[in-house]
Amino acid sequence: MDIQITKTTKPRLADFDFSDIPFGKHVSDHMLVAEYGNGKWMDWRIVPYQAFPMEPKCVTIQYAQCIFEGMKATMGKDQIPVLFRPELNIRRFNLSAERMCMPTVPEDLFMEALKAIVSFEKGWIPQGKGKSLYVRPTMYATGNDLGVKPSHSYRFVIFTLPTDVYYSQPVKLVTENTYIRAVPGGTGEAKTGGNYAASLLPAQRAKQQGYDQVIWLEAPDYKKIQEVGTMNLFFVIDDKVITPRLSGAILRGTTRLTLMELLKDKDIVVAERDITIDEVMEAHHQQKLQEAFGVGTAAVVSHISEITHKGKRIVLPPVAERTIAPMLYHEIEGLRSGEITDKKDWLVPVAQMEYEH
Amino acid sequence: MDIQITKTTKPRLADFDFSDIPFGKHVSDHMLVAEYGNGKWMDWRIVPYQAFPMEPKCVTIQYAQCIFEGMKATMGKDQIPVLFRPELNIRRFNLSAERMCMPTVPEDLFMEALKAIVSFEKGWIPQGKGKSLYVRPTMYATGNDLGVKPSHSYRFVIFTLPTDVYYSQPVKLVTENTYIRAVPGGTGEAKTGGNYAASLLPAQRAKQQGYDQVIWLEAPDYKKIQEVGTMNLFFVIDDKVITPRLSGAILRGTTRLTLMELLKDKDIVVAERDITIDEVMEAHHQQKLQEAFGVGTAAVVSHISEITHKGKRIVLPPVAERTIAPMLYHEIEGLRSGEITDKKDWLVPVAQMEYEH
Repeated sequence: MDIQITKTTKPRLADFDFSDIPFGKHVSDHMLVAEYGNGKWMDWRIVPYQAFPMEPKCVTIQYAQCIFEGMKATMGKDQIPVLFRPELNIRRFNLSAERMCMPTVPEDLFMEALKAIVSFEKGWIPQGKGKSLYVRPTMYATGNDLGVKPSHSYRFVIFTLPTDVYYSQPVKLVTENTYIRAVPGGTGEAKTGGNYAASLLPAQRAKQQGYDQVIWLEAPDYKKIQEVGTMNLFFVIDDKVITPRLSGAILRGTTRLTLMELLKDKDIVVAERDITIDEVMEAHHQQKLQEAFGVGTAAVVSHISEITHKGKRIVLPPVAERTIAPMLYHEIEGLRSGEITDKKDWLVPVAQMEYEH
Repeated sequence: MDIQITKTTKPRLADFDFSDIPFGKHVSDHMLVAEYGNGKWMDWRIVPYQAFPMEPKCVTIQYAQCIFEGMKATMGKDQIPVLFRPELNIRRFNLSAERMCMPTVPEDLFMEALKAIVSFEKGWIPQGKGKSLYVRPTMYATGNDLGVKPSHSYRFVIFTLPTDVYYSQPVKLVTENTYIRAVPGGTGEAKTGGNYAASLLPAQRAKQQGYDQVIWLEAPDYKKIQEVGTMNLFFVIDDKVITPRLSGAILRGTTRLTLMELLKDKDIVVAERDITIDEVMEAHHQQKLQEAFGVGTAAVVSHISEITHKGKRIVLPPVAERTIAPMLYHEIEGLRSGEITDKKDWLVPVAQMEYEH
């Protein structure tokens, strides 16, 4: 794959303040871009991060034909950047593409593109526990035909953002009993804009009431727990670890999968099954709810401190008493930083590219 | 409201071929634009139709925070353009905005903006039965913060497209029994991109099998009929007119509402109720299914010629034998063209603006 390089004339890296990197605020200097048309991907290039012209009748603006992925690059041993199980994100990206009637990106080209931009922007990988270069592959329609049908052309972009932890404190969640995020048969398994758009109003209302996020329940009876939108959920009840099974309406979280494998390695059984909010509330009242936590690429492993359901608030045991979530956080961050040996080849090193700057 | 005018330097109107105007293909020369920021709408202007720069991390591309409306302007009596019940679209647009956590557009400003652009572009209103200037108000996020939350800034655009009828022939529909478009509690009542994105794959599969569109059924049992995505549905069974009730997952169609009022005026009762696909199939077998048609701003009133459900195909009575749909089409098009007197003040005339070109 030939990648054309255009360096920025206004580099920001030298003067960049790595102490102020909340999630999503700052992009790095460059991004990788490719265009799709006439049935093929072309024009692969690394260019300064920039805006592209978009008509108001573009299929992206009108019909939200757009998908994304999120993954992290960290600095591993010997100052070699590493990606964490990127093949899982590549595969899920292509599943999202198929659901949204968009072209897939061949896995080998995707991987090469990922390595290229991470190598090029490796100076932007922050140092420090929990910090990383958040890598955001995005694909969106660039066609302008207003008829309701898939676009004929698309843009693939990978941009990167030096970022700190997403939730720095244990989170307070509230169940959502009016709105839904997704149902089986819908687009809940795809990382597509529409799922997130649907979540904005309920999330805003939750925030106005002092909660960090909502727990999505499954329609029509609003009993079964789905996810948080930014995280998959885990519960530890009576020494058993439980996570909602993938119903078709829940994102197939890569962190969810990784943590289940890590737990299995430690002979801790994870039950993937339907779990209702009533079961969680009841377990708490029986003093059997030991932990609850959310997991995701951005959130990593985030403790849940409180859950409110229909006006009833439960306060979970203090973080100091928890064992599973802290162990998982330690494992995953240890793997990323190289402190824990990567026996499963989950880390994909990013070699120096010849066009390195 | 002060609207700044910038005329195109490359006018296309004089040479435009009005015989080739399929839906969505050609925009007119100008559009109306406004920007939202710091809690208010500003910078109202008419400018040449054009693209705007958009960053890859724009909230529209990432989280599909975008809504639209569709309405039609036609040339009424005395060559005065008319809009058809625009207040219904304005109200629905603002309901969509609230669901998607976006600012509303004050109704009076919206109406003035609509009249301004239609007046400015009135030369683009095509002549001829069923033809119109399709008017597309659109609002989308222009903010670039990657955190999952509503944007702080938005753009409001009204662009227009001279357009012919959407479906020129009776349509063949197939029920969708795997995917869903929307459910109560979701975003099905909002005209937001994500609903349409979700529909692309099922619609494409239907087209590949020779159907024009799918009939959406309500999850989880896939029995109750919802809508077509581009149209609301009506059935005439045993001389009774039936349309699915608004469940929260069905678009509140303005044409649906108008046709129900027209039918009521003629003492034809419309039952708004749950109707299952089984009931429709059974009615056909009892030779009681007289008509089925889809209605919408773009589609107006479109006859349904065939319905296929789980491999069983029913062919509906020939159009020549139908009475309700042809009458409704005649009424609504007659009202638009001025051939039928507008007793209900549904037509909003667009006066000549002083900045007319």
